[in-house]
Amino acid sequence: METLVVGSVGLDTITTPQGTREDVIGGSASHFAMSASRFSPVKMVAVVGSDFPESAMDTFRKNQIDLTGLQVKEGRTFRWSGYYNIDFHKAHTRDTQLNVFSEFQPVIPQACKESEYIFLGNIDPVLQIEVLQQVNNPKLVVGDTMNFWIESKRQDVLELLKRVDVMLLNDQEARDLGESHDLVKAGRKVLEMGPKSLVIKKGEHGAMLFLGDEIFTAPAYPYSTVVDPTGAGDSFAGGFLGHLARTNDPTPRNFRQAVIYGSIMGSLNIEDFSIYRIEGMSPEEVQQRYEQFKSITLFD
Amino acid sequence: METLVVGSVGLDTITTPQGTREDVIGGSASHFAMSASRFSPVKMVAVVGSDFPESAMDTFRKNQIDLTGLQVKEGRTFRWSGYYNIDFHKAHTRDTQLNVFSEFQPVIPQACKESEYIFLGNIDPVLQIEVLQQVNNPKLVVGDTMNFWIESKRQDVLELLKRVDVMLLNDQEARDLGESHDLVKAGRKVLEMGPKSLVIKKGEHGAMLFLGDEIFTAPAYPYSTVVDPTGAGDSFAGGFLGHLARTNDPTPRNFRQAVIYGSIMGSLNIEDFSIYRIEGMSPEEVQQRYEQFKSITLFD
Repeated sequence: METLVVGSVGLDTITTPQGTREDVIGGSASHFAMSASRFSPVKMVAVVGSDFPESAMDTFRKNQIDLTGLQVKEGRTFRWSGYYNIDFHKAHTRDTQLNVFSEFQPVIPQACKESEYIFLGNIDPVLQIEVLQQVNNPKLVVGDTMNFWIESKRQDVLELLKRVDVMLLNDQEARDLGESHDLVKAGRKVLEMGPKSLVIKKGEHGAMLFLGDEIFTAPAYPYSTVVDPTGAGDSFAGGFLGHLARTNDPTPRNFRQAVIYGSIMGSLNIEDFSIYRIEGMSPEEVQQRYEQFKSITLFD
Repeated sequence: METLVVGSVGLDTITTPQGTREDVIGGSASHFAMSASRFSPVKMVAVVGSDFPESAMDTFRKNQIDLTGLQVKEGRTFRWSGYYNIDFHKAHTRDTQLNVFSEFQPVIPQACKESEYIFLGNIDPVLQIEVLQQVNNPKLVVGDTMNFWIESKRQDVLELLKRVDVMLLNDQEARDLGESHDLVKAGRKVLEMGPKSLVIKKGEHGAMLFLGDEIFTAPAYPYSTVVDPTGAGDSFAGGFLGHLARTNDPTPRNFRQAVIYGSIMGSLNIEDFSIYRIEGMSPEEVQQRYEQFKSITLFD
């Protein structure tokens, strides 16, 4: 099955201890789409400015990403500039220019309304909810958010939680939303707020899936060298939902495997700037990492 | 097979959000011994003062812990007092009284010199090395240390690393010793310093085993409610080495399972103050948690 993503597409200028890249493809929808398209076709709803390079459009199109829902508005594309220190602990923002993204109104084209697998990338929760009002009976909705929205629009985030099947949070967001230092207790509390499932992404410490009463834990892939972590969470989401759409069979077992595929795509994402590593990867690499995940977790 | 532990035995006064306990059994040798004795007999080498309660001695003896090597010196027992905040992030020391522990000279009794499985609890690395000079050809030596020694006696810790088979470190200690923010790179660097194997304990994020080129990752047991984390690392060591001594077959598979048993014993340790939870546990609980570890990590 195909996935539908609504989120941001931008041009990033990023400095890490490994170097600097200017005006490279960024944004939650871009990273998700490039990652999910490794598993099944993607339809993207987002907005860019008239300055968005045709070469970037081509990159998307070449990767089975349908751009029918991509609005091109007069003006400049969303831009983010930031840097990471040697520990890659957090992204430090130098500059954010919302540009055409500030007026983004997601419009789901007729051809996308029947999408069964939907990813609501990290945008204003009010817009995320509006997206859900435009689609017909999706099979699985995955939502993402960030601390900014949890702090500034908590009520809307809580409303969103009631409407998604799976919520993706990082550990800090889970602690904030679940109001507990204990990540498991926080996760369970978030689950009580509505979603059937929750995935907590813990960076170098892996990820944790809550599905009903079940808990599943996955380590981070240990063999990556970090070049640029930007977009790792969205690439994780792409692997996660991509696998579920590909199998079209949301069993607990496939949810667990989806977390592994998410971790694999996150691990690939961080090995180069922007979308480069995932653009250049082979399907065999994913399967090889999947086998490695088995070998690093098996004990019985 | 039996295990031999050399470390501290003390009386702890601990305050956590769950309450306060005064003068309860503490110290690395105590926590290790109580945990390892669930798997195989333990011989303990340590020192206490003449004020050390007979009831505590009885607790050890009742748990197949041989006290031939426990020195009782005129004076007061080692005492530590500390507290944890709501996030249990770190132990805050209120007061440390070394007392008779300040002059501790480990003497390995004749009856312990043939021990094949040895745990060097967190004491001065110079003393840890002296212990190894007193034993005959052990099969497996596991060493522990702490930031205090890494900072104040780095050369001696490096010397220790050449003489142990397995080193146990927490994540911060691994980063300090391995001089990398990347835990995997830090771990590999520590491995190059001598030990055949390294276990990095990451608290709520589980543990990581490096064994030659192999990496194995284990999550933390997710169902515990923290009451008092003091001694969790030593209880981990007890489960780890206890399992290896019990099986007496140090294959990579048993090393992996040893990490799981270590995690189980750490998870039990934190559920009550001092050694209480491990003292009161049943063997069935360990096996039950072992099965739960399988269920939270299996995906294929």
